[in-house]
Amino acid sequence: MTLPKLQIALDQTDLKSALDVAKNVSGFVDIIEVGTILAFGGGMESVRCLRQLYPNHILVCDLKTTDGGAILAKMAFNAGANWLTVSAAAHIATIEACKKVADDFKGEIQIELYGHWTFDDAKAWRKLGIKQAIYHRSRDAELAGIGWGKDDLVKMRQLSDLGLELSITGGIIPEDIHLFAGIKTKAFIAGRALASENGKQTAQALREQIAKYW
Amino acid sequence: MTLPKLQIALDQTDLKSALDVAKNVSGFVDIIEVGTILAFGGGMESVRCLRQLYPNHILVCDLKTTDGGAILAKMAFNAGANWLTVSAAAHIATIEACKKVADDFKGEIQIELYGHWTFDDAKAWRKLGIKQAIYHRSRDAELAGIGWGKDDLVKMRQLSDLGLELSITGGIIPEDIHLFAGIKTKAFIAGRALASENGKQTAQALREQIAKYW
Repeated sequence: MTLPKLQIALDQTDLKSALDVAKNVSGFVDIIEVGTILAFGGGMESVRCLRQLYPNHILVCDLKTTDGGAILAKMAFNAGANWLTVSAAAHIATIEACKKVADDFKGEIQIELYGHWTFDDAKAWRKLGIKQAIYHRSRDAELAGIGWGKDDLVKMRQLSDLGLELSITGGIIPEDIHLFAGIKTKAFIAGRALASENGKQTAQALREQIAKYW
Repeated sequence: MTLPKLQIALDQTDLKSALDVAKNVSGFVDIIEVGTILAFGGGMESVRCLRQLYPNHILVCDLKTTDGGAILAKMAFNAGANWLTVSAAAHIATIEACKKVADDFKGEIQIELYGHWTFDDAKAWRKLGIKQAIYHRSRDAELAGIGWGKDDLVKMRQLSDLGLELSITGGIIPEDIHLFAGIKTKAFIAGRALASENGKQTAQALREQIAKYW
């Protein structure tokens, strides 16, 4: 199993602030994500700008695409994204449309696991050739004090067994990493933890824990 | 029952093209929507600009908010939106966060009915005081040739009975209007049909059908 990567989610409301954060953390993350908040705040210009500044990072565009798949996917990949997020709640025709565009750009689709998705859905995504999903505590659920539960970990293992590589997010701290050992983990995604003053130390602590359990 | 309104969805990929369409149709629609495609293409600047140009229209920001509810809602309402769309797949904590911000701005939340939502979800939305939902054929489902079915109409009536006012969308043409008679319809949303050269005639034909069945 390859070592999980580290991903920074840029969720600033404007491009200028996001570029400041990116500058601070680019040296110690593998993946830079234009979060939904930044994507709506600054538009696709945010993706274009980060692609230009960081040509060697994997660039994720977190649109949580729910409809209009082909158009949104073309916008994101044209702007320079490598990976695009698509909502688990999207119609399978939307997901298929995104996958086709991703293939044209040699990019990848990541399914965002929100709402009442089912394992039948997950099998349908795999059938389309989709290899990645994102599992998270909702930011708002986290704020409401809802933690990582046994139920989460069971579902993650089942998705992993279906062949989906998972990116895991939602207030991830180094002390959480051991919980996910044995799960096909593509990346751990952090936003505020890496954007803070101690971002570099947090990244190192995360990498140490990853090396210990993978 | 008040007469359903007409809404134009601006789903151009850039603000300039969207402004051209808005200019053509503003005289015969009640509601202008910054569609998800435009919101990602041009960022919140699109909302600010349309608010300034059309101070008397209801302005909808179609973010299909799935997470980070409070921040996205503040961005949308601060930019001048009256209504904000939130995904049915969002965690209830996200929906609640959006509702709180909407209340502060005297705005409204519209739940976008994507994914495996349930009537228990719908009751939970109503409990938060949410009054609107958007029912649609997915654009991609429509492209795949999937029409308005009996199943759609039964669900719409049930949502209507729960007290949710519905905006209905997905390739709406005047000949479809009679299907929705008796449903608490807030608005019919059209994009391409109103943006075309015959937009004004289509709007008139839609209004005639609405007047006939409401």
